[in-house]
Amino acid sequence: MSLSLILLAAGQGSRMQSDLPKVLHKVAGAPLLHHAMTAGRQLSPGKTVVVTGHGAEQVAASARAFDEEVSVVLQAEQLGTGHAVAQAAEALRGQSGDAIVLYGDTPFIRAETLEAMLEARARHAVVVLGFEAADPGRYGRLILEGETLSKIVEFKDASEAERAVRLCNSGVICADTATLFDLVAAVGNENASGEYYLTDIVGLARARGLSAGVVLCDEAETMGINTRAELAKAEAAFQARARAEALDLGITLTAPETVFFALDTVVGRDAVIGANVVFGPGVTVESGAEIKAFCHLEGCHISRGATVGPFARLRPGAEIGEDGHIGNFVEVKNAILGEGVKVNHLTYIGDADIGDGTNIGAGTVTCNYDGVMKHRTVIGKNAFIGSDTMLVAPVKVGDGAMTGSGSVITEDVPAGAVALGRARQVNKPGLATRLFEKLRAIKAARG
Amino acid sequence: MSLSLILLAAGQGSRMQSDLPKVLHKVAGAPLLHHAMTAGRQLSPGKTVVVTGHGAEQVAASARAFDEEVSVVLQAEQLGTGHAVAQAAEALRGQSGDAIVLYGDTPFIRAETLEAMLEARARHAVVVLGFEAADPGRYGRLILEGETLSKIVEFKDASEAERAVRLCNSGVICADTATLFDLVAAVGNENASGEYYLTDIVGLARARGLSAGVVLCDEAETMGINTRAELAKAEAAFQARARAEALDLGITLTAPETVFFALDTVVGRDAVIGANVVFGPGVTVESGAEIKAFCHLEGCHISRGATVGPFARLRPGAEIGEDGHIGNFVEVKNAILGEGVKVNHLTYIGDADIGDGTNIGAGTVTCNYDGVMKHRTVIGKNAFIGSDTMLVAPVKVGDGAMTGSGSVITEDVPAGAVALGRARQVNKPGLATRLFEKLRAIKAARG
Amino acid sequence: MSLSLILLAAGQGSRMQSDLPKVLHKVAGAPLLHHAMTAGRQLSPGKTVVVTGHGAEQVAASARAFDEEVSVVLQAEQLGTGHAVAQAAEALRGQSGDAIVLYGDTPFIRAETLEAMLEARARHAVVVLGFEAADPGRYGRLILEGETLSKIVEFKDASEAERAVRLCNSGVICADTATLFDLVAAVGNENASGEYYLTDIVGLARARGLSAGVVLCDEAETMGINTRAELAKAEAAFQARARAEALDLGITLTAPETVFFALDTVVGRDAVIGANVVFGPGVTVESGAEIKAFCHLEGCHISRGATVGPFARLRPGAEIGEDGHIGNFVEVKNAILGEGVKVNHLTYIGDADIGDGTNIGAGTVTCNYDGVMKHRTVIGKNAFIGSDTMLVAPVKVGDGAMTGSGSVITEDVPAGAVALGRARQVNKPGLATRLFEKLRAIKAARG
Repeated sequence: MSLSLILLAAGQGSRMQSDLPKVLHKVAGAPLLHHAMTAGRQLSPGKTVVVTGHGAEQVAASARAFDEEVSVVLQAEQLGTGHAVAQAAEALRGQSGDAIVLYGDTPFIRAETLEAMLEARARHAVVVLGFEAADPGRYGRLILEGETLSKIVEFKDASEAERAVRLCNSGVICADTATLFDLVAAVGNENASGEYYLTDIVGLARARGLSAGVVLCDEAETMGINTRAELAKAEAAFQARARAEALDLGITLTAPETVFFALDTVVGRDAVIGANVVFGPGVTVESGAEIKAFCHLEGCHISRGATVGPFARLRPGAEIGEDGHIGNFVEVKNAILGEGVKVNHLTYIGDADIGDGTNIGAGTVTCNYDGVMKHRTVIGKNAFIGSDTMLVAPVKVGDGAMTGSGSVITEDVPAGAVALGRARQVNKPGLATRLFEKLRAIKAARG
Repeated sequence: MSLSLILLAAGQGSRMQSDLPKVLHKVAGAPLLHHAMTAGRQLSPGKTVVVTGHGAEQVAASARAFDEEVSVVLQAEQLGTGHAVAQAAEALRGQSGDAIVLYGDTPFIRAETLEAMLEARARHAVVVLGFEAADPGRYGRLILEGETLSKIVEFKDASEAERAVRLCNSGVICADTATLFDLVAAVGNENASGEYYLTDIVGLARARGLSAGVVLCDEAETMGINTRAELAKAEAAFQARARAEALDLGITLTAPETVFFALDTVVGRDAVIGANVVFGPGVTVESGAEIKAFCHLEGCHISRGATVGPFARLRPGAEIGEDGHIGNFVEVKNAILGEGVKVNHLTYIGDADIGDGTNIGAGTVTCNYDGVMKHRTVIGKNAFIGSDTMLVAPVKVGDGAMTGSGSVITEDVPAGAVALGRARQVNKPGLATRLFEKLRAIKAARG
Repeated sequence: MSLSLILLAAGQGSRMQSDLPKVLHKVAGAPLLHHAMTAGRQLSPGKTVVVTGHGAEQVAASARAFDEEVSVVLQAEQLGTGHAVAQAAEALRGQSGDAIVLYGDTPFIRAETLEAMLEARARHAVVVLGFEAADPGRYGRLILEGETLSKIVEFKDASEAERAVRLCNSGVICADTATLFDLVAAVGNENASGEYYLTDIVGLARARGLSAGVVLCDEAETMGINTRAELAKAEAAFQARARAEALDLGITLTAPETVFFALDTVVGRDAVIGANVVFGPGVTVESGAEIKAFCHLEGCHISRGATVGPFARLRPGAEIGEDGHIGNFVEVKNAILGEGVKVNHLTYIGDADIGDGTNIGAGTVTCNYDGVMKHRTVIGKNAFIGSDTMLVAPVKVGDGAMTGSGSVITEDVPAGAVALGRARQVNKPGLATRLFEKLRAIKAARG
């Protein structure tokens, strides 16, 4: 017996005003779909089915990028949530155990909440996730009889007394997999919209003598996204929680309101994060590292004692060693930097390995692209790369070697050697004075 | 018959604590004066008169920069709003049609509101713009008799009953041009401040048997600026509206609260704007372009599919072609970049034309300034500019040409050619080891 | 007779979740301890004693860095505030005049408030600083009898009537130095926590027939820091005040909510500060200078009429002369730049002197570090440093001299001379075409 997840991700989201399918819009650097899948994954489901519709190919690709084991089914026409769930029947045929229906546009349901629903299945055949709404507005209402869910009533069909109820329906439902599909198969579309509503299964279950129950969660968990304004609100909600959690964990945030975390950011205790730091996906920062103001980080690792920024950009594959220094206007990509490596100013390091204790001068570039292919630069330990050195990859610089400022390094440099590739300086006395005069005369003549 | 606009812009704004005339302080990158003129311009006025006083020359220059057809008159002494309007009489002599009095320090009046005032002129000789104040405070009150404006009463002269009225005076007034100046000429200064108040024309009109009426607008439209704190509040109000509108139009704003728009910013649907993006005046971003975090944009155009940033600065005259890439620590100014051009790292492109498909290496500089004059760099299609290439303008690089890393290009490069301008690399075995030893010895000797 | 200050700074601050002692966590770029010491210093105390405990060495070093005259004593065990004060007795033995007890984790007490306490000493032997709490919660309550402080009652010991009192204890206390230590010596630890409470001295004073009184301050002044969330709140409170003050002083802040000031930032009237500017310690900006968006400033001076940024970093010792220009992706450190010096793009200036009117080209680097020691670059007036010039320090460039783009300058350049250090350009016709073909063939062969 194992858990099945059914993720509804077929909607167009026309109110998003976007060509991108709604569930692929991002919060905290990750598609809404991945947020929903992240919560689901924590329950170790045996099988996950994503129901796609609008933008099916893009949504399927995104789902598989998150979890390649996922099953993807197509809801060719959008005929309602009940119809959407029915599309997963074939993929889950013969599956024993419970199934939970989740929504690709509802990113904040917690795994603990889903676990509470699974536990409640001991008492009820169908378990619905509800919440006390601060402003119930036009949500469907959950009508209870004692511990039992009597029915879900849509706002437009609700009596005055029912509208006064503040317990609302989130849409998330849990039931035995076979039961779920049995009930869904019985749902009809004889209503004003002509749609098959998943919520109807509560009434159908009750008619068959099955019990339905409710598990409650915080309203913030059920936030669904229908417009870009709501997306922005969800981003703000995510960031507010992430910042508060970071402070609780003992991370220094100089100006928490200016730091943007990704869904998977990991930062150690006593790390210091300055103002205006943006974390893309896949960043880990060890304890005691410092990220100064105005940094942009993605897919990188920053070790204990390292300092980054201000104005640094670390891209995927950047690994900064212990006590390393990455300074201003520096970009590092797909490069492993050893302990105590310093890259302090105006430098591009891409596709490189740099040994412990090496110092990279200002204006250095790893010339990793020849116009067609990318190549790697390898620098040893305790080397000194002079300012404005061009390292034309593939190329190696040995331990303890030096390069002269302004050199173009096209051949390997042995350990302990100095490499120079520059012309000798010549001074031409008085020439600047004459040149300035001449240029000013030309300018004056041109008016 | 055509509309005349009278813009009062003579005040010193001493509470701004500034040498700059108040109406030249900026919101959304544009002087307050331009905001007021923008609303006015949408009505296609036949004539616009700006009444200047403090900092008259600067204000006149700014007004003419916005609209060179504008008439500028001087109010030599600041004797009140009535007196200010009277200064426009000469400039509008013989002008038929209506006149509207606007204020250079009141940036948010909407064109639709002014149109409603013009329509209300069918019913009233004098039309005053009013608003329901959340906190009426010391605003002048509009006292109505049915549909008719009975009088405008200053707070200090108001009875308890009048003070209880929440309908307040914005100061914006519309009347037939000749009537307006007739009434203004009759305004006296027998009051505590010895000033000529424009508001007095309502009483004068009524005394002559002319009808006065009120058009209402939202209080937010009438926000006037008297202090820098109010200026900051106006900026915040502008940005809040601009961000909400952008979301409604289908623009992705990762963190709307960190994006600053200018008065004239145009962004297409499904464009993506990251955190901390600052728009100066004159920027257009096409649909589907992406501006990453930490970008500073002014007077530039970004085409469909292009990616900019993070940490990019586009200055006036930068045109980024379709699917172009502008990466980190890159500045582009007065340069036209073709389709798919890549400028990914640490580069300055100024005064240049770059053909489709060309790749510009890291650390490249267009040396456009010779110390006296600026010159242009022209690069063809599908060229490959090696890292750290100095392009000493004026200079041309042909289609499909290459430059070697670290080259200084002072002469044109033919199509398909490689240009090199660099010394050959020489390795000096063991020299780095000896140099490090020597330098450490010197340091040790110095203590 | 002179004033003594006793600063309690021994607490661990375990709720901070940090290895750093609590009082060394920063607000506005300065340790909490320095904030408290700043207020105290304005009273010109004769002697200041800092009581350390957790992280005593670090705290002592930080206190001495702020004021090298300070006495530091150690509270080996943390047995309560009374016990902490008692540790200062030896250091203040024989000291006449008043003493004030302050707290290292309470950064916002104003000097004016402390002066009011000293004045109140004319009427009372012991003066306690109190505040009207919006939400008194579990604060100790100040129970008055007329003008006299009857007692301080801890929340847990307070009656219902006493809990209804909203006048709360800040902990700050002032008394004659000798009296203070007499009273403190009499404090016992017979209470639930077994601690010696400083507040007990009020009861002890009253028992001896001495009068106690209260001085009130704003609740915001007494904000104490116990968690990182509170630290973030304190930072926000500091910045909100600093921004409002800046606006009042006539400084233009385009987006005040994005500007972060340090404790000691000084900015002149009509200076313009763009969005996203971070001030570290020790920055002065003169009237009429402009700091554009995305700048990071520390320990630097920006003169009248100068323009900095966007994307500039000024580090300690950077002095920008009148009408100077520091452009994008430029770093300046320990360098004095004369009037009208321009450093517009992608440059590192470190350890340098640059004369009036000199222009530094894009991509220039002062190569100030030889791998072991730092050296200085000196450039004269009206010089023109070509783009991508490497200035290998120690080196001098004379007045009106020029360097060619891409030159490595290792020897001094005389005034009026041109220095060149670069290879001549060679064009190899057709080679780029052949190279592209070859590279593409290799790539294709590799699959």
